[in-house]
Amino acid sequence: MTPIEPCYDVAHLGHVELLTNKPEQSLDFFVNLLGLTESGRAGDSVYLRAFDDYEFHTLKLTASHTTGLAHVGYRCASPQALQRRVAAIEKLGTGIGWTEGDLGHGSAYRFRDPDNHIFEIYYDTKRYEPPANERPALKNQAQRTHGRGAGVRRLDHFNLLAQDVSAIRDFLPNALGSRVTEQIVLDNGALAGCWFTVNNKSYDVAYTRDSTAARGRFHHVTYAVDQREHILQAADMFLENGVHIETGPHKHAVQQTFFLYVYEPAGNRVEVANAGARLILAPDWQPVTWTETERKKGQAWGLKTIESFHTHGTPPADHG
Amino acid sequence: MTPIEPCYDVAHLGHVELLTNKPEQSLDFFVNLLGLTESGRAGDSVYLRAFDDYEFHTLKLTASHTTGLAHVGYRCASPQALQRRVAAIEKLGTGIGWTEGDLGHGSAYRFRDPDNHIFEIYYDTKRYEPPANERPALKNQAQRTHGRGAGVRRLDHFNLLAQDVSAIRDFLPNALGSRVTEQIVLDNGALAGCWFTVNNKSYDVAYTRDSTAARGRFHHVTYAVDQREHILQAADMFLENGVHIETGPHKHAVQQTFFLYVYEPAGNRVEVANAGARLILAPDWQPVTWTETERKKGQAWGLKTIESFHTHGTPPADHG
Amino acid sequence: MTPIEPCYDVAHLGHVELLTNKPEQSLDFFVNLLGLTESGRAGDSVYLRAFDDYEFHTLKLTASHTTGLAHVGYRCASPQALQRRVAAIEKLGTGIGWTEGDLGHGSAYRFRDPDNHIFEIYYDTKRYEPPANERPALKNQAQRTHGRGAGVRRLDHFNLLAQDVSAIRDFLPNALGSRVTEQIVLDNGALAGCWFTVNNKSYDVAYTRDSTAARGRFHHVTYAVDQREHILQAADMFLENGVHIETGPHKHAVQQTFFLYVYEPAGNRVEVANAGARLILAPDWQPVTWTETERKKGQAWGLKTIESFHTHGTPPADHG
Amino acid sequence: MTPIEPCYDVAHLGHVELLTNKPEQSLDFFVNLLGLTESGRAGDSVYLRAFDDYEFHTLKLTASHTTGLAHVGYRCASPQALQRRVAAIEKLGTGIGWTEGDLGHGSAYRFRDPDNHIFEIYYDTKRYEPPANERPALKNQAQRTHGRGAGVRRLDHFNLLAQDVSAIRDFLPNALGSRVTEQIVLDNGALAGCWFTVNNKSYDVAYTRDSTAARGRFHHVTYAVDQREHILQAADMFLENGVHIETGPHKHAVQQTFFLYVYEPAGNRVEVANAGARLILAPDWQPVTWTETERKKGQAWGLKTIESFHTHGTPPADHG
Repeated sequence: MTPIEPCYDVAHLGHVELLTNKPEQSLDFFVNLLGLTESGRAGDSVYLRAFDDYEFHTLKLTASHTTGLAHVGYRCASPQALQRRVAAIEKLGTGIGWTEGDLGHGSAYRFRDPDNHIFEIYYDTKRYEPPANERPALKNQAQRTHGRGAGVRRLDHFNLLAQDVSAIRDFLPNALGSRVTEQIVLDNGALAGCWFTVNNKSYDVAYTRDSTAARGRFHHVTYAVDQREHILQAADMFLENGVHIETGPHKHAVQQTFFLYVYEPAGNRVEVANAGARLILAPDWQPVTWTETERKKGQAWGLKTIESFHTHGTPPADHG
Repeated sequence: MTPIEPCYDVAHLGHVELLTNKPEQSLDFFVNLLGLTESGRAGDSVYLRAFDDYEFHTLKLTASHTTGLAHVGYRCASPQALQRRVAAIEKLGTGIGWTEGDLGHGSAYRFRDPDNHIFEIYYDTKRYEPPANERPALKNQAQRTHGRGAGVRRLDHFNLLAQDVSAIRDFLPNALGSRVTEQIVLDNGALAGCWFTVNNKSYDVAYTRDSTAARGRFHHVTYAVDQREHILQAADMFLENGVHIETGPHKHAVQQTFFLYVYEPAGNRVEVANAGARLILAPDWQPVTWTETERKKGQAWGLKTIESFHTHGTPPADHG
Repeated sequence: MTPIEPCYDVAHLGHVELLTNKPEQSLDFFVNLLGLTESGRAGDSVYLRAFDDYEFHTLKLTASHTTGLAHVGYRCASPQALQRRVAAIEKLGTGIGWTEGDLGHGSAYRFRDPDNHIFEIYYDTKRYEPPANERPALKNQAQRTHGRGAGVRRLDHFNLLAQDVSAIRDFLPNALGSRVTEQIVLDNGALAGCWFTVNNKSYDVAYTRDSTAARGRFHHVTYAVDQREHILQAADMFLENGVHIETGPHKHAVQQTFFLYVYEPAGNRVEVANAGARLILAPDWQPVTWTETERKKGQAWGLKTIESFHTHGTPPADHG
Repeated sequence: MTPIEPCYDVAHLGHVELLTNKPEQSLDFFVNLLGLTESGRAGDSVYLRAFDDYEFHTLKLTASHTTGLAHVGYRCASPQALQRRVAAIEKLGTGIGWTEGDLGHGSAYRFRDPDNHIFEIYYDTKRYEPPANERPALKNQAQRTHGRGAGVRRLDHFNLLAQDVSAIRDFLPNALGSRVTEQIVLDNGALAGCWFTVNNKSYDVAYTRDSTAARGRFHHVTYAVDQREHILQAADMFLENGVHIETGPHKHAVQQTFFLYVYEPAGNRVEVANAGARLILAPDWQPVTWTETERKKGQAWGLKTIESFHTHGTPPADHG
């Protein structure tokens, strides 16, 4: 029997829009401590980018009365691929409709995941064109580096909380053509966590179970740095600047990512990570399934997962 | 006008077959100094793999009267994608035909590039199944690590010499669906080097001009390690073990890869490299073109490209 | 008033003798996982060294019915300095007397610290002379590297448990001329930990309070590696080889050392550490005092100190 | 025969005073690219320090019509030790006399080396007392970090050119109690380079032969960073900021230091270096002697020593 072909319609995660109720402090964190650069402003939003993100922005930071995720955007591989995905999502019945686009990209199609997080997909994008003072020494880099804060290279992935991770596992492959690379299945059969990718990165989004009754909550957004040592330096830098370090640096057992988690001033969790040379190259990768017993061993080198990692999300839940 | 969609028929570089006229010494190098593991033998060939290569082998080392490349294999994304590529290559007129496969994969279709290097494409593969003593501590890794030599994680890319790099630039996108990510164009318009990828890696093959009149020659094969520091350690290890270090560690200007080049005992050049978190995520990446003047600046931090890098290939050319 | 001159009579920590009730497994750990080399055997003891230790041995591993510290040796700066230290120790009244020396050094003078640990001081030593197959590529290194296990460079320091750390703080400066570089003073005034050095290293021995009623117990011995990344790699390697990782990698707040703690098969704790470029250069360094409140913040980046770190010592105490 | 005891009168290198004929640009380099902090100004001089230097300053940058070394200061271990050194130097006949001190230290005794470089030794020093906004998160660190430029930790060593390196080898052990750790002896018996230390660092000053007829010239000053990776990052940062990178990053064969050399805007050479965990602990260390043949192999991993390294010094020589 001929296998169904893998879907490459969605090229990559494009951007995340975060809400903050401490906009000035959050902006200071993202620019001066995480090391992003502002590429534009509109309304209540500031558009930010890491030095090697090729698009205009990868983080849209929007002032709000609350925190958490406003929406997430994925870029499709072509206009045709975008149309195919829209058709697929409309069939799934969770479509919202087209937007006129944003400062950093053209028209986008919005939809909801089963936990009510808002996604959008688009093709037309605005490439970052560095002004003279932002031109890099090496022309194969999107922008010069400034050496501010963690000095992250590019947006890597994000993580959402959901009531029913199994519903997400059914949804995302159909909506985005995502593949499941790793998952945690509890002894009772429930799916506690699931990692998805649309390309060769080992994951661009992860979902874990929300231990509260809330829906649509955000767990973290992650920017990639080039070396594990850069994360150790980032830890020193966050310490020196009074940022709340939640856990790490350490190495995840799941996906083997070297990680560091901090909270930006409004409470949104931010990760700095390095995956080494690990990629998912197999077009027919079989999901790795972790059991409850295996996960109880903690992280790769034995660090126990910190309690707040299971409870803290944004916006805060009414009853934890 | 609707753009042509990017081609994702070929999933990734699968393996390289190298010839050696010093088979025992070469094998000792690849196992004990580069850190590969033997996964099988057949005829004059030993099959080798890095610890996180998911396939049975990524290097086939074949005893011969000479050195250089025997063939290179790419794995397609699906059986259908394989058929599409075969049809495209047959149209290009450089097809050789089907083989029955090898120890590590099923039937493959062979063809020649314009410089007479032999390629093959295949879909059916033999996944590496670790025996009990090779099982990794973390189940999302193909095989345990042993800490031997450079301890490389996975096959990364290879580099070939060619008389006419422009002919290759015309050929590979049509044959494999490769995209050009970077290139060197001399003042006289000639293409001195060209880097191609079929996926999110910034390149899986590079071609540079052969300064001799020889055809079909091999420049190097590269395995990836997780961190730049691992390459510094590899340099120490090669020094301690009397391996000829040609150049590096340093950072390429082109592709920004951190590199180290050595010769294995038979003279084939081997690279250990780290690309940091750099990936080509844009589905419509525009090739970066380096001028002759720019390349004269040397590598990223100013290291002048060593003369042998332009002349040494395998097999040795009759007249340099 | 003219200050008393600093004492430089003792040059450095020389070696540690550890007892093991699993001699074969312990030896396998120290050679194949920590990466030491055997330089000799005598009686029930195996003599081990790191690749850049200049003396014959820095670890003497002795088969026994128990575990823990047999003795520790410091090398003096000159024969005259040795005589001055012997005179000082005899005045302190804890001297045991002269030994004829050992495989790795000449006659040594033994004494007890206030918690009954046995120390010795010596001047005459046996420099390691590498046989042909152990000669390094760079002649300014004591021995070639082999790339086994953690591949540690040199002995760094050791840590002992004591009932009364204040008594140690009074004793060591008088006995060895040690200086206190850092200390933990509890709210009740008790000294919970004290770090000492005889040279520019920030510490060569640390004492922490034994939470049991036992005396003469051993907490850990530490070997230094060149880079923090090497400790991350060591963690991967220990994980792959089933070694019990107690805590780390992380950065100590005290002394800022980057650390990883494991247990060798007999239960003795072993640390792999990197101090970066941190040295104590000031001849009149003032001890840094940490309060109970400060220590409750955990390690540098917030890791809570693991409970076993306060309780596990060797030999095990009858009542914890 | 009883050996002469090693001399520990001089504790460590204290500071270097450099001249610059581009004072604003040089200051910008040292503060924003090397990452030093200004701790004071007086006359034509700016006083600078790395974040973990415990003294008020380690670099005095003085505006001048020329470049090169004004003087270098070493701190003694005690007032008594200072007196002993003054007596020894006066016996050597190269003393200049006492100064009243400087912003960062008390009275100092000045003298000349045989090549006419000016040294001073002192004991009374001004410890750096961080104002509130410069207090570090970890109290065992002299000052907070800022993440500017290379972010160097502390002054490491300096390097001078001399007509007669043998004369220096005779002089420094008598003047400062320095020990020779490594040296280069040419086939004709001439000393081409000599590395000295007064403590456990493998060297605090190196002299190499001046290939011109000039005297009193300066080769470079070096600040230490904690990890080799930090030097790779510094190379990226210098590249991005248009600083002239002379050579590196690479590993010296002599002393095994990982290095990177750049020129500050006025032409004084500055090195960023990491020695790993390598220390000279032996009180009776025997100098390592490199032959002309050995040095022709280049640096540790084969990098050829760049021509300017043998010719460029400050101030520039009239005839090279």
